[in-house]
Amino acid sequence: MELPISPWEAALGEKITVPTLSGSVNVTLPKGSQSGNQLKLKGKGLPGNPAGDQYLRLKIVIPKQSSEKVEALYRNLAEQESSFNPRSSLGV
Amino acid sequence: MELPISPWEAALGEKITVPTLSGSVNVTLPKGSQSGNQLKLKGKGLPGNPAGDQYLRLKIVIPKQSSEKVEALYRNLAEQESSFNPRSSLGV
Repeated sequence: MELPISPWEAALGEKITVPTLSGSVNVTLPKGSQSGNQLKLKGKGLPGNPAGDQYLRLKIVIPKQSSEKVEALYRNLAEQESSFNPRSSLGV
Repeated sequence: MELPISPWEAALGEKITVPTLSGSVNVTLPKGSQSGNQLKLKGKGLPGNPAGDQYLRLKIVIPKQSSEKVEALYRNLAEQESSFNPRSSLGV
């Protein structure tokens, strides 16, 4: 199952609420979580004895629209992270 | 194929370089691009007459590590976007 998270939740490692087969649980994301990373929730999968684990695949998502303030913050981030190339593995 | 993009490239709709079967091309992302969205590059797929289109699935990724400055910007973003719930569709 995919678990959508925001860039700030991923970067800061925030505590979030996650739906599982045995109800909602609170999870603290690892700092620097990444799209595609898997999150393992021990004992929160299929019921049984012992209960199975639930795996969630992280997906970083953003709000559809941005205010001017938010855009300014993104521009600031782009400057701070100017050495970051998301496509380095693609050779571009 | 998956195309990794940064949160600021996605939010601001920046111009990026994309590898295709017919070489690298420059593409301006739609503002507010989202993980999972498809990008269609007309005529940049399999060669032929006419050439096929190349489809790329966007994936928002972030740098592994953040400086204190970057973390402060993310905290500011989190405040500005406090009404955004990435998991609203999951009912949590």
